[in-house]
Amino acid sequence: MEKIFNEFLHGADYNPEQWLDYPEIFEKDIELMKKAHCNVMSVGIFSWAALEPEEGVFNFEWLDKVISTLYENGISTILATPSGARPAWLSQKYPEVLRVSETRVRNLHGFRHNHCYTSPVYREKTAILNGKLAERYASNPAVIMWHISNEFGGECHCDLCQNEFRNWLKEKYKTLDNLNKKWWTTFWSHTFTSWDQIESPSPIGENQVHALNLDWKRFVTDRTIDFMNHEIKTVKKYNPSIPATTNFMYYYEGLNYFKFKDYVDVVSYDSYPEWHSEDNKEVAYRVAAYFDIMRSIKGKPFMLMESTPSMTNWQRVSKLKKPGMHKLASLQAIAHGSNTVQYFQWRKSRGSSEKLHGAVVDHYGKEDNRVFNDVKEVGETLESIKEIINTNVKADVAIVYDWENMWALNDSQGPRNIGLNYIDIVMDYYKVFWQQGINVDFVDMESNLDKYKLVVAPILYMTRDNFQDKIRSYVKSGGNFVMTYFSSIVNDTDLCYLGGFPGNLMDVFGLRSEEVDALYEYENNEVTLYKNNKSYKCTEICDLVHVKEAEVLAEYNEDFYKGRPALTKNNFGKGTAYYICSRMEESFNEEFFKELINELKIERNLNINLPKGISVSTRENDNKKYFFLQNYLNEEKEVDLENYILKDLITGKEYSGKIKLKSYEILILEK
Amino acid sequence: MEKIFNEFLHGADYNPEQWLDYPEIFEKDIELMKKAHCNVMSVGIFSWAALEPEEGVFNFEWLDKVISTLYENGISTILATPSGARPAWLSQKYPEVLRVSETRVRNLHGFRHNHCYTSPVYREKTAILNGKLAERYASNPAVIMWHISNEFGGECHCDLCQNEFRNWLKEKYKTLDNLNKKWWTTFWSHTFTSWDQIESPSPIGENQVHALNLDWKRFVTDRTIDFMNHEIKTVKKYNPSIPATTNFMYYYEGLNYFKFKDYVDVVSYDSYPEWHSEDNKEVAYRVAAYFDIMRSIKGKPFMLMESTPSMTNWQRVSKLKKPGMHKLASLQAIAHGSNTVQYFQWRKSRGSSEKLHGAVVDHYGKEDNRVFNDVKEVGETLESIKEIINTNVKADVAIVYDWENMWALNDSQGPRNIGLNYIDIVMDYYKVFWQQGINVDFVDMESNLDKYKLVVAPILYMTRDNFQDKIRSYVKSGGNFVMTYFSSIVNDTDLCYLGGFPGNLMDVFGLRSEEVDALYEYENNEVTLYKNNKSYKCTEICDLVHVKEAEVLAEYNEDFYKGRPALTKNNFGKGTAYYICSRMEESFNEEFFKELINELKIERNLNINLPKGISVSTRENDNKKYFFLQNYLNEEKEVDLENYILKDLITGKEYSGKIKLKSYEILILEK
Amino acid sequence: MEKIFNEFLHGADYNPEQWLDYPEIFEKDIELMKKAHCNVMSVGIFSWAALEPEEGVFNFEWLDKVISTLYENGISTILATPSGARPAWLSQKYPEVLRVSETRVRNLHGFRHNHCYTSPVYREKTAILNGKLAERYASNPAVIMWHISNEFGGECHCDLCQNEFRNWLKEKYKTLDNLNKKWWTTFWSHTFTSWDQIESPSPIGENQVHALNLDWKRFVTDRTIDFMNHEIKTVKKYNPSIPATTNFMYYYEGLNYFKFKDYVDVVSYDSYPEWHSEDNKEVAYRVAAYFDIMRSIKGKPFMLMESTPSMTNWQRVSKLKKPGMHKLASLQAIAHGSNTVQYFQWRKSRGSSEKLHGAVVDHYGKEDNRVFNDVKEVGETLESIKEIINTNVKADVAIVYDWENMWALNDSQGPRNIGLNYIDIVMDYYKVFWQQGINVDFVDMESNLDKYKLVVAPILYMTRDNFQDKIRSYVKSGGNFVMTYFSSIVNDTDLCYLGGFPGNLMDVFGLRSEEVDALYEYENNEVTLYKNNKSYKCTEICDLVHVKEAEVLAEYNEDFYKGRPALTKNNFGKGTAYYICSRMEESFNEEFFKELINELKIERNLNINLPKGISVSTRENDNKKYFFLQNYLNEEKEVDLENYILKDLITGKEYSGKIKLKSYEILILEK
Repeated sequence: MEKIFNEFLHGADYNPEQWLDYPEIFEKDIELMKKAHCNVMSVGIFSWAALEPEEGVFNFEWLDKVISTLYENGISTILATPSGARPAWLSQKYPEVLRVSETRVRNLHGFRHNHCYTSPVYREKTAILNGKLAERYASNPAVIMWHISNEFGGECHCDLCQNEFRNWLKEKYKTLDNLNKKWWTTFWSHTFTSWDQIESPSPIGENQVHALNLDWKRFVTDRTIDFMNHEIKTVKKYNPSIPATTNFMYYYEGLNYFKFKDYVDVVSYDSYPEWHSEDNKEVAYRVAAYFDIMRSIKGKPFMLMESTPSMTNWQRVSKLKKPGMHKLASLQAIAHGSNTVQYFQWRKSRGSSEKLHGAVVDHYGKEDNRVFNDVKEVGETLESIKEIINTNVKADVAIVYDWENMWALNDSQGPRNIGLNYIDIVMDYYKVFWQQGINVDFVDMESNLDKYKLVVAPILYMTRDNFQDKIRSYVKSGGNFVMTYFSSIVNDTDLCYLGGFPGNLMDVFGLRSEEVDALYEYENNEVTLYKNNKSYKCTEICDLVHVKEAEVLAEYNEDFYKGRPALTKNNFGKGTAYYICSRMEESFNEEFFKELINELKIERNLNINLPKGISVSTRENDNKKYFFLQNYLNEEKEVDLENYILKDLITGKEYSGKIKLKSYEILILEK
Repeated sequence: MEKIFNEFLHGADYNPEQWLDYPEIFEKDIELMKKAHCNVMSVGIFSWAALEPEEGVFNFEWLDKVISTLYENGISTILATPSGARPAWLSQKYPEVLRVSETRVRNLHGFRHNHCYTSPVYREKTAILNGKLAERYASNPAVIMWHISNEFGGECHCDLCQNEFRNWLKEKYKTLDNLNKKWWTTFWSHTFTSWDQIESPSPIGENQVHALNLDWKRFVTDRTIDFMNHEIKTVKKYNPSIPATTNFMYYYEGLNYFKFKDYVDVVSYDSYPEWHSEDNKEVAYRVAAYFDIMRSIKGKPFMLMESTPSMTNWQRVSKLKKPGMHKLASLQAIAHGSNTVQYFQWRKSRGSSEKLHGAVVDHYGKEDNRVFNDVKEVGETLESIKEIINTNVKADVAIVYDWENMWALNDSQGPRNIGLNYIDIVMDYYKVFWQQGINVDFVDMESNLDKYKLVVAPILYMTRDNFQDKIRSYVKSGGNFVMTYFSSIVNDTDLCYLGGFPGNLMDVFGLRSEEVDALYEYENNEVTLYKNNKSYKCTEICDLVHVKEAEVLAEYNEDFYKGRPALTKNNFGKGTAYYICSRMEESFNEEFFKELINELKIERNLNINLPKGISVSTRENDNKKYFFLQNYLNEEKEVDLENYILKDLITGKEYSGKIKLKSYEILILEK
Repeated sequence: MEKIFNEFLHGADYNPEQWLDYPEIFEKDIELMKKAHCNVMSVGIFSWAALEPEEGVFNFEWLDKVISTLYENGISTILATPSGARPAWLSQKYPEVLRVSETRVRNLHGFRHNHCYTSPVYREKTAILNGKLAERYASNPAVIMWHISNEFGGECHCDLCQNEFRNWLKEKYKTLDNLNKKWWTTFWSHTFTSWDQIESPSPIGENQVHALNLDWKRFVTDRTIDFMNHEIKTVKKYNPSIPATTNFMYYYEGLNYFKFKDYVDVVSYDSYPEWHSEDNKEVAYRVAAYFDIMRSIKGKPFMLMESTPSMTNWQRVSKLKKPGMHKLASLQAIAHGSNTVQYFQWRKSRGSSEKLHGAVVDHYGKEDNRVFNDVKEVGETLESIKEIINTNVKADVAIVYDWENMWALNDSQGPRNIGLNYIDIVMDYYKVFWQQGINVDFVDMESNLDKYKLVVAPILYMTRDNFQDKIRSYVKSGGNFVMTYFSSIVNDTDLCYLGGFPGNLMDVFGLRSEEVDALYEYENNEVTLYKNNKSYKCTEICDLVHVKEAEVLAEYNEDFYKGRPALTKNNFGKGTAYYICSRMEESFNEEFFKELINELKIERNLNINLPKGISVSTRENDNKKYFFLQNYLNEEKEVDLENYILKDLITGKEYSGKIKLKSYEILILEK
């Protein structure tokens, strides 16, 4: 791993096989890469047809030349296994590699990322080609990493996958009787009397057994990992020291990325925010949060494997990045723990669906343009801040973001089918910390909570038994845990806890939830916070609780539950457990958490008053801390650094007192 | 039938087979049922897999115990045939039982309510299990009724059904030549030259031959009834005296419920209004109307077979019922002719798709909560008003609500494809009577009109020949008939009447409609009512008529047809026929019908001025009349009873003059 | 051809086979046709089942009678080949004639216009019946024209069509290697190694290879023409002098109608505008534009083959035409080059899906109604203006409207997936000329530009190589060419031009486009036009160009590109090339083009100030010019004819100075 993080990586996906007929282009590429301060290229991602034009006929010459020429010019290669897109001959000869949809229709050949993860033929053919690649390049010093396939995703419902799913279920439940009980199949007479009766969820079959739906999603993640591991094995065989990664996707819900943590050597990530689609400060914290998730998966710096130097071509509107935004957005990734800034892609394709996607080099082909210069500036900056490479982000606060809970919650019928908005609510809480310049980790239910001063769990609808235990012991031994409405309703097979909600945590929170009222999109209630006697809007869900030991901190103002608790606090063991009964507006969250932060002595990165839209993140190691001061506003903004004296890492300039941050400016500072 | 209506029934769907592993739950259930004043449970609705876990292997012990224990505790059983959801082994072994969609794709196993109504195997298997059930329980005094299957609905397009459809058509049309003429198949060269060429409507085949579409819908109703009758036969064989019902659905358009009237012994109904989704008075009259439809089907009291004691979990938003609403809503059913208040379901399932649907007993499992107490209060009230059981609702006014017309109208291409809004317009007229405290019956084209002082027929697009005759003779002999625009356009195979509209009723109404103008959603016209010279908005359709004998009562104010008739009256024989040319706003309808009501001396239930949102319904027998005074407002409201002296049936308290009705209060009064 | 255009044709689709059981109807029809001044009927369009009720059994007697009786009454017949709707026996016996969808599902029998254009059986069966028809009627003086099939459209993805598509590709590309390069298949490893691997685009297969998508659309047009030519051959065999047409559809995008120009003898067209859906002047210019497209295809007068005398029944709202509108709308077609006014249909069907579509004769069946009289008035008017028959429309201005560009643009991923709005922008420019009373031709990339003073090319995303050459030489030799943003991006297989945009036209326009910014629907920028220093809103796309030789005429006011060029002018050779960088608001277009019109001395039809919503078109021959002065406003409007003295062609009345035009009035004037 040291091999890859000696310095920040700066580079792009590079698809030179598209340009084999244009030899002058390759030469120009090398020249421009050096000008752009690139030190890495990801090669081979969609090269199967170029590498194996016919079954069993291989052609590596062009790749030999690419890798060696890059290396001679100081550019390393991240080498991809090309399984993300199979060649037409493979689909034609072996239709079993084609994915089958949930309506049980087999795809025709086309598109990409749509093979069956089970097909023995597909596994065999990837093994052969991966093996050839590894045999040839795994010991080449130019190659620093494996890029396994590309953006894994989706699911296959073919008979082979159905069979694997049944095996997975047998392994998990052992007996059908056990499965029937855990899935509550007596409902609607759904009892299974043979394993063969179980099929993956389908709009034309079963889709109402929530535990089946949930297990299918778990299976899809496991199956994907199984396929990835198959690929990793085929390449590591030739040189186990080359690290392997696979690139995760922006806000992708289909795979539980936390489960990949033991199988990839480093997390890498493709980030495509819609900058300028609205007030950028509303975009910025969501981007930051997802970077933090990526870092949290392994608790280590990650790679920004893909981003666009200008615009995408697949979003609603292909918006240009305004001046400054490319640098700000790239360094935001660094600030939150990325050790790379990489692009999709180096040069715009001449044809097909991504030809209008932003790239470092335009069809124009020359360097005298805004985008190229923006990229070059990022390259220079990364070189200037090289010393930061050996740091990481540290956080005292954790937010629970759990894929399994998200899946269960999104599949829940009731109490608000127009939206329980899991991710939005996670972001509500994240925003408070981001805005105050406090680093945040994300955890799932498998994670250890002990190192955090504060853990926040938004709508933890599904709370696995062992996580209830974790919460209990965390609070008991002094932890501070904030949970919201509609939590601990079901266990890990979506069976409701009996005896009251929140499940086995009623004593921890000192209350019982009797009913949950859901609000229409045009409705709201209001709560009054006792300590300042101010009123705040609340929406979506109003949990109606009976407090036992808990202290009430706020109450509802309207409807038949006017006067009933809306926020509670319970001392349990050495710690404290808070329960938020409704989706509160931003100013409530700010007020509530600001006090909690002070009370728990959680350190802000800079203990100053940050204007809205200005955030500060830090990276540190045992010796040193670096501050990333970021302005997401479309205007210059004054920030009062008060007594801090901070030095610009690049220019050496010292800042203190009131300073001006330009629109979209980022400063990288040290004390 | 006397067996079931000695007293009001209060109970719920009960699914104890879900809890066989939790013996303490069954005991607790019995205890709570008694506390909630329940006297009936509907059992076995989804019990196939529990009763016949393998083909030909039956297990009735758990059911024996349930039925007898309930009975020992004073609770009768409504026993269901379990065909609503088949077990997995049945689908697996006999795929023919799986329904085929209109795109000719066979379902996988899953969900419920989706078997083929034709499949001989399905009929055989239901006959066997139903027979076993009847043999064992039909003479058990605990069992008071058969609940045949559950919420029949949907359609199957398999080859077996196609064949039955062709047989149905042969029976109806005798010759292909006759069918071709009635269906007007010459259009687009659609002439059929072999019965085999006819298939059910399909988005990938034929869907533009309206008469085919219409006959298919008729066939689906007939096929469903045929299947239901097959089931009824299998259970009545063992004891014909046990009545049978099947539960109809809230605003379901797929089946012509009027056609079930000769086959079910009593109508039962599942009602799920969205209380509190808007001003409740806008919800209340639509709920009342559908209760009146249910009562009208057989002209007898019906059963509220399902309702929720709190919220559903499948609507957009699972809203809690505010205090008072549960009692008001339950007794509204009684007021409009129900003899039962029953719930889905007794206890919330622990898992699967309806676990968050409101039930009498929550996962919490105890009685100290709002919902349980609301239910208990309804139970107590039903006992207190027991004497009302032998009454029915009587009405002088009928509204035509005809499924076949609705199907034809909804399938009509033109004149306003964005909506002709049949049900809404039926409700427009119903609302006028409901608001004035006048009972209403609903009739379809098969019904007898003679007993009514007034009949209202909104958009009677399809007017069957015999109904034209009925209208003619009804008016001729003194009846009063109100019809709207776009009526009597087609006959019962959707062939337009030739010679002018409204069909053969031009002389009855004394006019001819030349053209129909349709208005965009952002447009309206205006009419002036001559008698008060006031103007009213009208929308959607403007019928342009030439009056012959008719008198004009109102005219259009705008567009090129300014000054032309908008409302007409024609004396025909001893009666009168009114024609309303457009969709008028509420105040027009109030004005027009108020005068007509006075003129025709139609009695209001209380001849007082009812504030909007307050309604009064009555039930009566030859000796006595009971008044249900209902407040659907979110506030207390004063009602002036004027000279009436009315006594509260429960408390004995006397009311007269100005009284206050609390928000969501209902008073049950006698003179 | 002289045979058909001796006089204006006035008539309708006539389907007497629907009424064979109603002999009195046929007699009445003849009587009413004469009253309505009809001289032509289109017969047989959906008569296959009536003509060939069983395979090989033919029945022409009814048709003999229809054609001869019409002829005896002065009414000619346009005879249709009935392939638009096949009989059920054909689908039943030969399922291969049924179309296969893009998801590879074969249709069931039903609907119409959905046969496979490749099926040898379908071709054989149409050949047999067409041959019989032609043999019998082609020399009958009553028959003046062939109406080939009906409204060709749609596509078939069956194996037969796949095979033909591959043959079409082989013919075009010769080698797979060439195809792979032109399609840029290296992207996503899509290289084809066997022709069999290529399939038509599909949502369950390939749909991201733009060149494949585009070639498929080209193939669909070619295949449709091939089928049409097959039909034409079968009928012309018996009398080559009878002209053949096929009716094109209102704003249909699926077929490149320009490609039909060499195969049909005359263009005919079905026009169904939604009059009164909004301000009619916003409807009128779009209708006019499409008439101009139809005329431009062959550069000759066309036929208005279908229109409705009142309303359609398939649009959102079936709006009546207000008084005057039918005449105005019918003569608008004449004004823009139609030599006929024809209706769908003569008499409303009694049943099936189009029974409520407007027709000359209603179900009422008599003549005393508004619609019949409107039709009669048009018939009389056409007789009165008979002398205009030998004229055509002449234009100095052309707008590029190119189907292939539209297809490519609509398929483009980026830069604005929520809409690049090709047709709307074409209409933006057309509107300017229409409003000023300037005739416009439409051209595609195959057309000759030389005869025009001004050519306007909106978003010419795909600019074929040869069209780049055409533009260059047109401008060089003195032409004036206006092009917009996002033009000359790709060549004819959707490969981007390398070296800068607009492709090989950078020198012609004297600039290079560096970037294209896309705007959200809620955004806009602003431009200032230097010459009047006024500001105008612009939306959707902002092209950021670097001018080289070009002169800047306007600049952006906002965003980071404030001050950069928004409109440029470049002198190139003897001509001038303008580049419009954004979608400008109407007043900008008016201002810009008004000056250009003056500068280029482009003649207005009447050199007067036309109020908005009043337009004037002309038809002329070498001797004479006729003026059609049209008022699309819902109100009377004053027009100042200034010094013109114009004479009403029908009444002889002279007009000059200020005159009043009634709402929806049209005057046909001569000098």
